[in-house]
Amino acid sequence: MNRSKTDRGSPERAAEPLFESMAVVGVGLIGGSLARAARERGLVSRIIGLGRGEKNLRRALELGVIDVMETDWSKGIPDAELVVLATPVESIVQLLPRIASLCGDESIVTDVGSVKGSIVHEAERILPAPGRFVGGHPIAGTENSGAEASFASLFTDRKTILTPTDRTDPEALERVRHLWKAVGSTVVLMDTDQHDRVMGFVSHLPHIVAYTLVHTVYSVDQREGNLARFSAGGFLDFTRIASSHPEMWRDICLMNRDALMEAVESFSLTLERFKVLISEKDGQGLADHFAQCRRVRADLLKTDK
Amino acid sequence: MNRSKTDRGSPERAAEPLFESMAVVGVGLIGGSLARAARERGLVSRIIGLGRGEKNLRRALELGVIDVMETDWSKGIPDAELVVLATPVESIVQLLPRIASLCGDESIVTDVGSVKGSIVHEAERILPAPGRFVGGHPIAGTENSGAEASFASLFTDRKTILTPTDRTDPEALERVRHLWKAVGSTVVLMDTDQHDRVMGFVSHLPHIVAYTLVHTVYSVDQREGNLARFSAGGFLDFTRIASSHPEMWRDICLMNRDALMEAVESFSLTLERFKVLISEKDGQGLADHFAQCRRVRADLLKTDK
Repeated sequence: MNRSKTDRGSPERAAEPLFESMAVVGVGLIGGSLARAARERGLVSRIIGLGRGEKNLRRALELGVIDVMETDWSKGIPDAELVVLATPVESIVQLLPRIASLCGDESIVTDVGSVKGSIVHEAERILPAPGRFVGGHPIAGTENSGAEASFASLFTDRKTILTPTDRTDPEALERVRHLWKAVGSTVVLMDTDQHDRVMGFVSHLPHIVAYTLVHTVYSVDQREGNLARFSAGGFLDFTRIASSHPEMWRDICLMNRDALMEAVESFSLTLERFKVLISEKDGQGLADHFAQCRRVRADLLKTDK
Repeated sequence: MNRSKTDRGSPERAAEPLFESMAVVGVGLIGGSLARAARERGLVSRIIGLGRGEKNLRRALELGVIDVMETDWSKGIPDAELVVLATPVESIVQLLPRIASLCGDESIVTDVGSVKGSIVHEAERILPAPGRFVGGHPIAGTENSGAEASFASLFTDRKTILTPTDRTDPEALERVRHLWKAVGSTVVLMDTDQHDRVMGFVSHLPHIVAYTLVHTVYSVDQREGNLARFSAGGFLDFTRIASSHPEMWRDICLMNRDALMEAVESFSLTLERFKVLISEKDGQGLADHFAQCRRVRADLLKTDK
């Protein structure tokens, strides 16, 4: 079953602004890039930057990513037509009470977190106008972080998933969708559960697997001397994603626990089947298994376009 | 325990040839590159190319990778001072009887297979002068194959593992070691078991894990629609190695079954421990686990130099 709807983006300059003012909470790679792209395409008249790191905000101001910085949120949030929560995923839920106490009834609130169920659920529970919250997740990123790393074309030809619920105001959804399309994203609508399952399989599971692989080699390395230097780069390339922030992954695991557990269980079952093929020396079974994987990956590559 | 000995290579031109003639069976990426490097550094006076693919041999001749091609092995093998078995790993064992029936008592025979136990065992069982066989594994490669893809600097600053046994003639070992050092490799000596365990963990296990990941996503993809298009490239990058040749991986699994099973079991245990952390919502345990992996990988990167 695929309930997603797709809407291809077109990064052209808007005839008139979509929002008078946009408050970006967390002017990092994602928040900063959205600000740059929105400005470049004339989508927003005024961009207010908020966040914990004053130094980063000051740099964002210098770089022209934002028009004004506010450390006092009671000044930055109430007047914003759109509030974008772009802090690390784990802190979005924690920010919601503060946003709820400050934002206006008409403000649209959206986020960029990579887990949606827990955020959307909490936002609808706590915000004064639950229908004005639109959960979002742009699937884009680089190795770098901070306002310094942001750039306007980050979302060009990338997908952004929005996760409206039955309670979501269609007008709020439409405007947030318009914003992401206008910065070059292809917008896909999913429900929160589907989003979290998809990400559990195609993003969170690979990270867990890479971490597990590093840990496995480490434990045998301790006993056997330095194995990894014989890996010809492959092992280290393959495990590059195991260098992400430990706290972020802790929180993703906890926030997307059910979907991730399902993905990990599914992976374990597949691995068990593979072990049977090896232990039974089933050459034909192994060749078929590998050939199928290769074919599948080629198919996935094709449809990734 | 680390029984390996390391010997750093120095790719300078030799004062006089190390071997009068070298027969390369399988003039592909590895065999062809060894031929090119050996010629460039004046290590071998005459290089004979042998193999199944006449078209590839002809191309190797045109490119100057080899001096002469032989489809009749009874002409190419007997006179060679050094015979290098550089066909795909799975066919090396199958070639041995033919080599045994043709090569002279003084010939040194070596190979480049990525699994060593089964090859070395069979070579010592079947060759007329078992001590003249030196198992080898240059840890180098690219995505490409065939003589066309070969180049002289493939082994520069890469490691080559040699796996002598109690029976190996020290003079044969010394000359093969000299060859690999002279083409720029750092030579490491290990016993066959250690080699196969190391490769089981740092090379074969990552491939199996990548295949398993692709298979897992595929199975849920079938039910849920196309998930992989939401992977932001990460999943596809990560699983790049799952596009290798199915037959090659079938044979590596069978040839290195014990070590690979040990590695897979070790991986499974680590994954189980991780599942417990998630299911118990052990935030501190998860953060510690991820932080350790990150630290370990950074250490591995350092010592990889």
